[in-house]
Amino acid sequence: MEQDTNGLEVAQARGSDQHQPKQHLSQHESLLELPPAPEPGTPYISQTILCRVPATKDYVLNHVALQIESPASSLAFYIDFLGMSLIFVVNTGPFTAYYLGYPQKSDVSPADMAAETGVRSGLLELISLHDKVDDTPETSPSKRRGFAHLGIRVPDVSETLKLAKEKGWKVIKHLDNVEPYDMPLPGKIHGAWQAGFDQTFAQIGFLEDPDG
Amino acid sequence: MEQDTNGLEVAQARGSDQHQPKQHLSQHESLLELPPAPEPGTPYISQTILCRVPATKDYVLNHVALQIESPASSLAFYIDFLGMSLIFVVNTGPFTAYYLGYPQKSDVSPADMAAETGVRSGLLELISLHDKVDDTPETSPSKRRGFAHLGIRVPDVSETLKLAKEKGWKVIKHLDNVEPYDMPLPGKIHGAWQAGFDQTFAQIGFLEDPDG
Repeated sequence: MEQDTNGLEVAQARGSDQHQPKQHLSQHESLLELPPAPEPGTPYISQTILCRVPATKDYVLNHVALQIESPASSLAFYIDFLGMSLIFVVNTGPFTAYYLGYPQKSDVSPADMAAETGVRSGLLELISLHDKVDDTPETSPSKRRGFAHLGIRVPDVSETLKLAKEKGWKVIKHLDNVEPYDMPLPGKIHGAWQAGFDQTFAQIGFLEDPDG
Repeated sequence: MEQDTNGLEVAQARGSDQHQPKQHLSQHESLLELPPAPEPGTPYISQTILCRVPATKDYVLNHVALQIESPASSLAFYIDFLGMSLIFVVNTGPFTAYYLGYPQKSDVSPADMAAETGVRSGLLELISLHDKVDDTPETSPSKRRGFAHLGIRVPDVSETLKLAKEKGWKVIKHLDNVEPYDMPLPGKIHGAWQAGFDQTFAQIGFLEDPDG
């Protein structure tokens, strides 16, 4: 989808099971005033005016992506039972992505939702890998399914990635990392992008969540 | 938050590393017409009218919850770098939850966002456990942080859970499961709810995602 190709995605920390020292933590901490730790039961709500920094004022938390094993089972759960709508389905070559969401009142058909996929919030992306090489009873389910990333829509991915590097956050996919294996997922991606999805993927950056 | 206490949460399948047979799959599949598998590159968008079933028409994909280790690091990443706003912070006893989101144009202060937390979409909940008993270098990071659940706002949790059981989906927290250990998280919850959070928790149901 043209509307959805300009994005930043936040994936879980991966790699070693060893605890990673957070080299840049003190640098980050110094930039933010932490909220006071509230007593149990009383929510703390800041009384300040919301801060809208020009650099991030158009950011949108667009979607959550989960890797799934069985489209039939997942679509039955999220569409038939939980009442979401299927916005579109796209086959990138190595995987098929199903975009789901709850419609807004003015939506008549999935095409209305698809036209605004990039700017909406609260969507769900289900990613089904085509190559089932990992799919044996002996393989841990954690490789076959699970949380993939948070998708954040940003006006200028290149600028955001540059800022991330300056601030010491870890970029795990730069704009010139365009191979399928550059995409962090619970499972391993096999095969090549097809039908121009390499160009779409070249417009997406991935950051590592330091902590989530 | 009163506005956010009436919910349904979808957590990852847990338990055995063995592949779980999906006993009810054929039942689920029969209810839904699967979309055609598209050729690479051409998104499939259904041309039908969106189906709004009365039972689910007011459902909202409210938030994604991640368990975090370091509030300082996570808040620096999501607020200072990615420009989200802190809506509220609540201490439930065993953990502190930070609710974040991007403000709407009309929002002036976090209180404006907090007043509508329950009905909005695209929020992020960061859950920080207070008891650090699992937090040693020898413990797998997967227990200390990671995807916790999707939060879906529904008008009648009891009705939704009843429907889930009828359809064969797995309910992992019923309304009368009110202990902290009834809450599925990557890490283990220690301690008791405080300051009335047991009543809040009694209004939340958890379902197991069959596949994600």
